[in-house]
Amino acid sequence: MMEKKIHEECGVFGVFSPRSCDVASLVYYGLFALQHRGQESAGIVVNEDGVFSWHKDVGLVNAVFDQQKLESLGMGSMAIGHVRYGTTGAGGRANAQPIVINHLKGGLAVAHNGNLTNSYDLRFALEEQGSIFHSTSDTEVIAYVITKERLKTGSIEDAVSAAMNSIQGAYSLVIMSPSKIIAARDPHGFRPLCYGMTEDGTYVVASESCALDAVGAVKVREIEPGEILVFTKDGIVSRTEHCKKVRKSFCVFEYLYFSRPDSEIDGCSVHDARRRAGSFLAESFPIDADIVMGVPDSGLDAALGYSQRSGIPYGIGLIKSKYVGRTFISPTQKTRESLVRLKLNVIPSVVKGKKVILVDDSIVRGTTIGRIVRILRDGGAKEVHVLSSAPAFKNPCYYGVDIDSREKLIACKYSVDEIARIIGADSLGFLPVEQAKRLSGTDGADFCLACFDGAYPTEIPKNLGKSCFERKISENPKFQKKDE
Amino acid sequence: MMEKKIHEECGVFGVFSPRSCDVASLVYYGLFALQHRGQESAGIVVNEDGVFSWHKDVGLVNAVFDQQKLESLGMGSMAIGHVRYGTTGAGGRANAQPIVINHLKGGLAVAHNGNLTNSYDLRFALEEQGSIFHSTSDTEVIAYVITKERLKTGSIEDAVSAAMNSIQGAYSLVIMSPSKIIAARDPHGFRPLCYGMTEDGTYVVASESCALDAVGAVKVREIEPGEILVFTKDGIVSRTEHCKKVRKSFCVFEYLYFSRPDSEIDGCSVHDARRRAGSFLAESFPIDADIVMGVPDSGLDAALGYSQRSGIPYGIGLIKSKYVGRTFISPTQKTRESLVRLKLNVIPSVVKGKKVILVDDSIVRGTTIGRIVRILRDGGAKEVHVLSSAPAFKNPCYYGVDIDSREKLIACKYSVDEIARIIGADSLGFLPVEQAKRLSGTDGADFCLACFDGAYPTEIPKNLGKSCFERKISENPKFQKKDE
Amino acid sequence: MMEKKIHEECGVFGVFSPRSCDVASLVYYGLFALQHRGQESAGIVVNEDGVFSWHKDVGLVNAVFDQQKLESLGMGSMAIGHVRYGTTGAGGRANAQPIVINHLKGGLAVAHNGNLTNSYDLRFALEEQGSIFHSTSDTEVIAYVITKERLKTGSIEDAVSAAMNSIQGAYSLVIMSPSKIIAARDPHGFRPLCYGMTEDGTYVVASESCALDAVGAVKVREIEPGEILVFTKDGIVSRTEHCKKVRKSFCVFEYLYFSRPDSEIDGCSVHDARRRAGSFLAESFPIDADIVMGVPDSGLDAALGYSQRSGIPYGIGLIKSKYVGRTFISPTQKTRESLVRLKLNVIPSVVKGKKVILVDDSIVRGTTIGRIVRILRDGGAKEVHVLSSAPAFKNPCYYGVDIDSREKLIACKYSVDEIARIIGADSLGFLPVEQAKRLSGTDGADFCLACFDGAYPTEIPKNLGKSCFERKISENPKFQKKDE
Amino acid sequence: MMEKKIHEECGVFGVFSPRSCDVASLVYYGLFALQHRGQESAGIVVNEDGVFSWHKDVGLVNAVFDQQKLESLGMGSMAIGHVRYGTTGAGGRANAQPIVINHLKGGLAVAHNGNLTNSYDLRFALEEQGSIFHSTSDTEVIAYVITKERLKTGSIEDAVSAAMNSIQGAYSLVIMSPSKIIAARDPHGFRPLCYGMTEDGTYVVASESCALDAVGAVKVREIEPGEILVFTKDGIVSRTEHCKKVRKSFCVFEYLYFSRPDSEIDGCSVHDARRRAGSFLAESFPIDADIVMGVPDSGLDAALGYSQRSGIPYGIGLIKSKYVGRTFISPTQKTRESLVRLKLNVIPSVVKGKKVILVDDSIVRGTTIGRIVRILRDGGAKEVHVLSSAPAFKNPCYYGVDIDSREKLIACKYSVDEIARIIGADSLGFLPVEQAKRLSGTDGADFCLACFDGAYPTEIPKNLGKSCFERKISENPKFQKKDE
Repeated sequence: MMEKKIHEECGVFGVFSPRSCDVASLVYYGLFALQHRGQESAGIVVNEDGVFSWHKDVGLVNAVFDQQKLESLGMGSMAIGHVRYGTTGAGGRANAQPIVINHLKGGLAVAHNGNLTNSYDLRFALEEQGSIFHSTSDTEVIAYVITKERLKTGSIEDAVSAAMNSIQGAYSLVIMSPSKIIAARDPHGFRPLCYGMTEDGTYVVASESCALDAVGAVKVREIEPGEILVFTKDGIVSRTEHCKKVRKSFCVFEYLYFSRPDSEIDGCSVHDARRRAGSFLAESFPIDADIVMGVPDSGLDAALGYSQRSGIPYGIGLIKSKYVGRTFISPTQKTRESLVRLKLNVIPSVVKGKKVILVDDSIVRGTTIGRIVRILRDGGAKEVHVLSSAPAFKNPCYYGVDIDSREKLIACKYSVDEIARIIGADSLGFLPVEQAKRLSGTDGADFCLACFDGAYPTEIPKNLGKSCFERKISENPKFQKKDE
Repeated sequence: MMEKKIHEECGVFGVFSPRSCDVASLVYYGLFALQHRGQESAGIVVNEDGVFSWHKDVGLVNAVFDQQKLESLGMGSMAIGHVRYGTTGAGGRANAQPIVINHLKGGLAVAHNGNLTNSYDLRFALEEQGSIFHSTSDTEVIAYVITKERLKTGSIEDAVSAAMNSIQGAYSLVIMSPSKIIAARDPHGFRPLCYGMTEDGTYVVASESCALDAVGAVKVREIEPGEILVFTKDGIVSRTEHCKKVRKSFCVFEYLYFSRPDSEIDGCSVHDARRRAGSFLAESFPIDADIVMGVPDSGLDAALGYSQRSGIPYGIGLIKSKYVGRTFISPTQKTRESLVRLKLNVIPSVVKGKKVILVDDSIVRGTTIGRIVRILRDGGAKEVHVLSSAPAFKNPCYYGVDIDSREKLIACKYSVDEIARIIGADSLGFLPVEQAKRLSGTDGADFCLACFDGAYPTEIPKNLGKSCFERKISENPKFQKKDE
Repeated sequence: MMEKKIHEECGVFGVFSPRSCDVASLVYYGLFALQHRGQESAGIVVNEDGVFSWHKDVGLVNAVFDQQKLESLGMGSMAIGHVRYGTTGAGGRANAQPIVINHLKGGLAVAHNGNLTNSYDLRFALEEQGSIFHSTSDTEVIAYVITKERLKTGSIEDAVSAAMNSIQGAYSLVIMSPSKIIAARDPHGFRPLCYGMTEDGTYVVASESCALDAVGAVKVREIEPGEILVFTKDGIVSRTEHCKKVRKSFCVFEYLYFSRPDSEIDGCSVHDARRRAGSFLAESFPIDADIVMGVPDSGLDAALGYSQRSGIPYGIGLIKSKYVGRTFISPTQKTRESLVRLKLNVIPSVVKGKKVILVDDSIVRGTTIGRIVRILRDGGAKEVHVLSSAPAFKNPCYYGVDIDSREKLIACKYSVDEIARIIGADSLGFLPVEQAKRLSGTDGADFCLACFDGAYPTEIPKNLGKSCFERKISENPKFQKKDE
Repeated sequence: MMEKKIHEECGVFGVFSPRSCDVASLVYYGLFALQHRGQESAGIVVNEDGVFSWHKDVGLVNAVFDQQKLESLGMGSMAIGHVRYGTTGAGGRANAQPIVINHLKGGLAVAHNGNLTNSYDLRFALEEQGSIFHSTSDTEVIAYVITKERLKTGSIEDAVSAAMNSIQGAYSLVIMSPSKIIAARDPHGFRPLCYGMTEDGTYVVASESCALDAVGAVKVREIEPGEILVFTKDGIVSRTEHCKKVRKSFCVFEYLYFSRPDSEIDGCSVHDARRRAGSFLAESFPIDADIVMGVPDSGLDAALGYSQRSGIPYGIGLIKSKYVGRTFISPTQKTRESLVRLKLNVIPSVVKGKKVILVDDSIVRGTTIGRIVRILRDGGAKEVHVLSSAPAFKNPCYYGVDIDSREKLIACKYSVDEIARIIGADSLGFLPVEQAKRLSGTDGADFCLACFDGAYPTEIPKNLGKSCFERKISENPKFQKKDE
């Protein structure tokens, strides 16, 4: 798709090396490979013999870090990093991660992907004890809870273990203490987290396996839901005893949209899952067409899957500009219409006089797909049939995905036929939820599909009505205001 | 491909509007769509009632221009722009285009795509008359020649016409005088140049039709080889009488590599030409394979063509990072090898145990394709057969393409079988030159294929031996040095 | 002198307007006038109806804020700001002020000038309760103590009042809650703090009166030592009852060096105090000389005072470059010697053959004054007599002045005669401490002169030996490191 | 004064070293010392064995050059540099100097301070021969004329010598060829130019001697009016034979305003000349006053001179902010009045109840001095008598000084008494022209005083009426426009 329609918060990355070396660069490359998970801010913390050096700022990885900035972080044997999606504005830099704090027992750096469902309650309880908060992010709450537990326990991993009894919701964490790297994943395993090893014995933790590939590490395995993995100079220790067993609920949208096609999760590559989605679409929506095309880039895999299953030829008919990025000057409303083809252009010779099947990764508001349908018709397409490789969005997500508010979700307001008419398509189909469950090639009982079917795997936040799509109070820009 | 292996100099763009308006933004968007033709520098010159305002600098279009810079150019009824590939360093900014000069009869702005074959001789002759040069670019020579002719003729278009008797080689020009926009193309038509019109009557000249699409203009036609097209407030005038008739020699590599797939040249889309190249490869190199894949992005079309012709399934097995750009911090030599997969990664599930056909747009030094073959084998490919959709490079180009020096061109040193061994491929094939001639769907007699077959359509520069690949003297960084 | 030899931490500024307006710009201009108090970082927090917006970063005020940044802070009825001197590096941005936090009862922004003497103990006690710290600055400790007290009291001003029973040392604070601005000064009144009012009824709090002048405010009075002044929409309330009465101990170095000559403190202008210092020097050190000159800029006033008292002509013989700033590329050691005169140059015609009295504001290491003496001799001066308008530094400061470590203080190691020899002067004199007590025109019993005479007005930090000049542990860059 | 009211174009600097070394840094420091002569753009060209590397851009020296930029210029044995005052906008960068060009015989770099009076005619003649111009600066004309002469002569110095027969007006030039540095000054010697030598045998040419001091060079002497000085590896050669003898006409305003007080010109320091101006004022305008003060910084020397001559005490009563610079955000008109004291503040205790004499370097429009008079009265001054150490401006300058247009010159419109009333002064006096002639301590017959008395030492430009203050046609932004 042209613009990210749906946002997730964050990619995390960590390195534990047997020797002091340029760990900052390893994290830099790792974050680079995870850039698709968050374009708002980036940060790296290096640990050299217990002393932390860090830099973080709003911007893409290669904008936040230049050679000089990387070098200023120095050598070290450990480092963690983070890329973040988030709101812009005054709070942007304050919420950049990893957060770095000091507590009684030493320094602590935390990088977090996910969203707590009880952060408001935890924060309120901490504030009642006199705690102060510098940001509005869940991650500071996590740091606090760990710090409180640390006073009562004998090690940082004990503190993390104890903290996991308090914090609820989605979290894939990479934590750095003066002498350890700790990876931890919530019991439902909403967000991905895996680790690997390079040839020279450096351990690498990452949100996705593509980041392991990027630094030449070989994947060992996923961090299991509820698992705590501790990397020290004495080796790796896995802790799982603390963890209540619950049903795994991996976010299906990681397969459909967030993760990179070359990442592999739980034994299934994201590319294969997407192709399977296309294959399911071909079974559910057999269409008499001449060609099947994907909306670049994330619709291509599913389009190929549809083509392979149906036998309808796969085509390349839409070209996306490689250079459209954040700093691009937006056209004014007046010129916007004529400039649609600046970002995405059609190859008329491919679609002219053809019945076209167009596969996109999802449909949120419907405006973008509507424009693309028009571009295809301008290019001479005789028919345009639109298929979404994700089911229709109908519910909010409490686990770290920033879906539009309900009044903007087209599927909350219109029937499928109405939507087809609105976007100008000859027909429209969404991937059935039942098929989404089988995306990874197994029966799929371990997916969270709440945004599609409303079946939330956890208690949902009291303070937030189930049907409301507003952002959590803790992220409210007016948070500072209170009576005195 | 991952990095541009072969460089061409420049994209040009011009606008003639019936009224004063935000022509700077139109050029900005047009250059944006031509960014693939040159990433070194960008520039825009706006003409408001005969007064020129301009800005140019090294960098990508969206780095050189921000909102403030665009606004500082003001309104106007005409504007031209340029994106350039070129060497970095001290000369970078000095050589940025369009160049803007004053002569006796007024101001002149020139944007040029191509390369003169007699620029050294012309420059020497001008210097003998006391001329001074601020840059080392051909374009300044062109401006001088036009200026000299302008003194003897009655109009700027007469001067351009007369200048075309002196300048030789490849040139697609967009020229702006106080009251006119002039588009001109060399008699061989080496480089593309076309024009179109928007709904509100604004004329647009561009190197490629994708830039017309980007600003909502409808293509009218190519500027013909040797043609001069003059845009004034009284309309368009075409001049062709001045021009010696020579055989058209359109650069075939524009179809194979330089131009965007969604551009259409002489009635044939670049995408179709590339697919046809793949189809020809399938005919010339039938291979027993399970899957055919392209090296993203420019190998994808030909791979699809091969698949369609051969029936071997098309696959998506290589993922290119969207975020790798100019400002990326290069890994040190030490870490380079382990970081190959940062820019391009394999999807193992796609290639594992498979006999793979890999189509790339061209093979220059062979290092990049060698790395990709290794990535595929790491991913489990059983066989890797490499096909190049361009013939083998064996000769220098004098018409604006910056091909590597001969000692670095792998096809100048080794046989096809040796190259296959060097890059680790099970087999290797280059598109036969005879087939390259038929790429646009016609008999192709009007292509320049000199870099492949050595049949130069023009006299080649005296000062440069035919077999030498060194850059012209006029671009030599030591050019300032002379005895006194 | 040319470079700041002695550093103080910070200038503070606050605005309370009866209506929402562009308070950010007022703070910007106020901080600009206080820039001499801190060049390391700058920050502004705007309060619009209880919602805080802020920006802070390392750099000078006009580097940190451009028009866009100022506008992004929006309108408001209250704002506070801060300029800071501090160490560069990783901690630089984290320690920028004002700090902005949330606690149970609302938001809080704190700007602090001074230095606590018990911050280490307070921090340790807070950490024992599970508090986390994001920075190493005293100011975060202050915010914590206020927050803790806020839970037990009925208003933010009660909390500040209670906090003043815990925090010890030097502090001039400007605090902003959702509905109030609070100014507070430690009982000894080490650092200055005053307030004024503009014609339109806006209250302004500032470290120095020159910042009131800068925004067109008329000074009302100093905030008294130990006083809390609360600005609300209902007016101003002064609280002093909470405060143990102690002897006022205003830092004499504020008159001699830190404050701007045009600031007025306790009824005496800084310029007059400096001229008086020169007058005292004339009484203590009558010298047979032809001319008396000051080292620009801060030695000029005292030189004029010496001239006026002694009758020896005042001369302008040293010129300081206006353009030497932070971003200047430092010469290498090799070229340093030859480049002394880049920053400060002599006018030979003024000093040639003359007996010169040279007045500097202070002498710390002696290297700079030694270079200037040499410059004067190079210019032809027959004799050079050096006078310091400050007494000799012999003791550390615990109240916010960053004096060099004792082993670098020339007066700790050598006698006055030895120093004269070292710096190449014909004679040398320091302002006697007894005279420093009378600088403001009164008997001066209320000055802190500890850095000169060692008579500390407070208990000094346990954790820091009296004779040690090392920075506080809490500012140690290795602070993160602890055993686990 | 607070803002530069009158602008001159440029400072020049050149280095010739016997060996390859870091000449770029020497020029950097030299330009830094000349920064007061031009703040618009800066540039450095380094010559390493005949190969030129350069960088130039708009901005202050330390903004245009950082460590990386300086290093990119490499080592060399020669270098020249330039700081420029000029108009902002599109032409800003194009007009930055030194200009670097190539001609038949080699490279040429030219740095120029001054203004030609026949540049329009020369340019027209060159254009008639087909020359093209990239900028609107005189310097390009000079480069052309030298180039034309170079074709007819045997050496670059012969060419410069011949060129001096064509170019008329004010020029102090530093020229670099592949193997030589050439300094040249127009026969009237309007602008200063001197040279010196460092201990290691490096020759340095500079606009002012303060720049020699800055790099540790000892001044040898002025370049004489009409002299050409050639620096080669074989030594220095002076050429004067070519030069028609004319009356020397050194710009008196160099003493009064442009040059730094620590520069020495023709044996008289600028500081002494300014003090002498003050002394003359005391003779011409004896006033009954309590104190005499200068407007910082350039009025201080004359104020001291007045005090020394009259016996009225010298005072420091105005403080100028050190941090006000180019990037400062200008207050809106609404807030401007209240923010006058941001840049310049009064010390009330110094002026309260006093009769004050205020000396400024010149009075152009009268607005600034009017504001300062008001500030003094706000501070309690009983009387304010204003003296200008320059005579009243009544005529345009054709030799490189950018004086305001006549309709804005207060002395063209009002009598002295009227001006006193307008600026709110109790009395006003301008330095009499006759006294200005004696500023350097001699009879002063060799000054140009045309801006005061209208006695132009050269023919004035035909194309520009004597009474018109408009900028030359060649600098007209509409220069590009011509009929075709």
